[in-house]
Amino acid sequence: MLKNKPIIISAGEPAGIGPDIVLMLLQKVGTEGIVVCIDKLLLKQRAEQANIQIEIKDYCADTYGSVSTASLSCNESRKKTLIITVLHVPLKAEVIAGELNALNSHYVLEVLTRASIGCMQGEFSALLTGPVHKGIINEAGVLFSGHTEFLADIANVEKVVMVLATKIMKVGLATTHIPLNKVSETITKESLQQVLEIVHSELQNKYHKKHPKIYVCGLNPHAGEDGHLGREEIDTIIPVLQMLRDKGYDLIGPMPADTMFQPKYLDDADLILTMYHDQGLPVLKYQGFGEAINITFGLPFLRVSVDHGTALDMAGTFTANPGSMIAAYEHIKGLV
Amino acid sequence: MLKNKPIIISAGEPAGIGPDIVLMLLQKVGTEGIVVCIDKLLLKQRAEQANIQIEIKDYCADTYGSVSTASLSCNESRKKTLIITVLHVPLKAEVIAGELNALNSHYVLEVLTRASIGCMQGEFSALLTGPVHKGIINEAGVLFSGHTEFLADIANVEKVVMVLATKIMKVGLATTHIPLNKVSETITKESLQQVLEIVHSELQNKYHKKHPKIYVCGLNPHAGEDGHLGREEIDTIIPVLQMLRDKGYDLIGPMPADTMFQPKYLDDADLILTMYHDQGLPVLKYQGFGEAINITFGLPFLRVSVDHGTALDMAGTFTANPGSMIAAYEHIKGLV
Repeated sequence: MLKNKPIIISAGEPAGIGPDIVLMLLQKVGTEGIVVCIDKLLLKQRAEQANIQIEIKDYCADTYGSVSTASLSCNESRKKTLIITVLHVPLKAEVIAGELNALNSHYVLEVLTRASIGCMQGEFSALLTGPVHKGIINEAGVLFSGHTEFLADIANVEKVVMVLATKIMKVGLATTHIPLNKVSETITKESLQQVLEIVHSELQNKYHKKHPKIYVCGLNPHAGEDGHLGREEIDTIIPVLQMLRDKGYDLIGPMPADTMFQPKYLDDADLILTMYHDQGLPVLKYQGFGEAINITFGLPFLRVSVDHGTALDMAGTFTANPGSMIAAYEHIKGLV
Repeated sequence: MLKNKPIIISAGEPAGIGPDIVLMLLQKVGTEGIVVCIDKLLLKQRAEQANIQIEIKDYCADTYGSVSTASLSCNESRKKTLIITVLHVPLKAEVIAGELNALNSHYVLEVLTRASIGCMQGEFSALLTGPVHKGIINEAGVLFSGHTEFLADIANVEKVVMVLATKIMKVGLATTHIPLNKVSETITKESLQQVLEIVHSELQNKYHKKHPKIYVCGLNPHAGEDGHLGREEIDTIIPVLQMLRDKGYDLIGPMPADTMFQPKYLDDADLILTMYHDQGLPVLKYQGFGEAINITFGLPFLRVSVDHGTALDMAGTFTANPGSMIAAYEHIKGLV
């Protein structure tokens, strides 16, 4: 990992709460070791709205870190001022908080692209992403199904795994945003093997688990009850688990999802793999209400995101809960 | 409701933990107003194993309640003795704790039948069921897919709804024990309407909610995201909700399941209807770990059950957690 490199934060949709929660994060954790990728005037504007004193330092890859931001705030009067290093990407149109504008969709994607390329080139240690708005990006004529897929494209990786995490659990998804009645056919031996290989390798490489222990849910209720409630466990899941166990993987399952989330398993598991979106996320988001985070496994860099949307109605009011943004930052700090 | 009638408890599979947790319940809450439907020698035996002093009174419908069990334990030496009213159903074969025996499967069904007929005839106020073992009943040549379906047959009702509950939430299931890839086709406008009618009427009649508020999950991730992730919301769920709203139902949804289980909705909802087993139960069982209960909506009587199995390996050891049994009893007491 890139221990001494800054974390890059993409603030996400400019009309949403992204800039607010970035400022709230910086107020809480300070600005040392963080670069914010955003239009600097937008950040300034939003800070003024919230009466937060900031001073912006333009990010420069060559000199970053040579003078610490902390040491700049030496005299008393400046102590309350947040000195924020900004990697400036200019907006395409003026932003009104709460009002989406397709003209700025390319700005959002430029921010993401610049930040992730920086991560791939070793300029930044990790990417923390604020919320974007899928709908408005698509309205701008860009086929965009989400951060995860966009970053996989940029990084030129075939498959990534969406993992949601709280302080108590990590939950991976074998399938993500597809209709429920496509789940069964989407999970093939090949895809499941690939998912488990990615999860296993990420837990080893980014989470320093030498022998990661992965609990795997069945697809059907009661994990199929020996074929009485569906055959995917017998035909697909069990053979893949067995094959990977033979390669040394520590895999438990397939287990019924409804009895999976109990203390003895949660304590033991490095990650719980669920087969689809609503099998894993209701329990995770209930447990980690307001501070769940989203991690993309399988990218060549560490990318962690808030787990919520742009909350347009709260943008600029600084009433949004920055819990997920703070949790995402702390998660990254625990790793890099 | 039948306020002054006793609650009948069916102790379930005789080789399982059913008899243990019944005794543990009675130790905690006393025996007043409770009739246990079981082979009385089995209960005696199990009590001896745990060193619990009991005295068995044969249940007699005509005289029950004329002398309270509490008043019988008047002298000091008997104060520690549980005086238990038993509706005796004889076993078919000897029971060894932990060892299933198909010879006793008909005993299990006789217990259930006798207890539920008593409920239907107004002899008992409610039925509290201990865990049964589906496999061994099927081995005995009886097609048995669960308590819920068996009781619906006895009561001659076409459809019932499985509801799981904790102190924090009630979660209903639009479909239960079917393969995941059958869920979409199983939910029709007719079946969903029927489910909502049953839930609505039970909340009114048994839970005294004049205007029950029911939150309804979508079938697909993000409730289909306006058709981008599946069309069942648009084609089936939304039309049914609208039709029932026109009849005065207070229905919220369809909502994404992953953001449904948050305090503001849980506080507001009388019940959350999920579309299938693993959409609703992981979060409920996580939240109410060890004290979730199972309620059958749509029967002509109140039936509440433990939410766990027979735990054969713990039978007779009195190490099982009686939390669900106690919660089920308290739930009934809150209603009758």
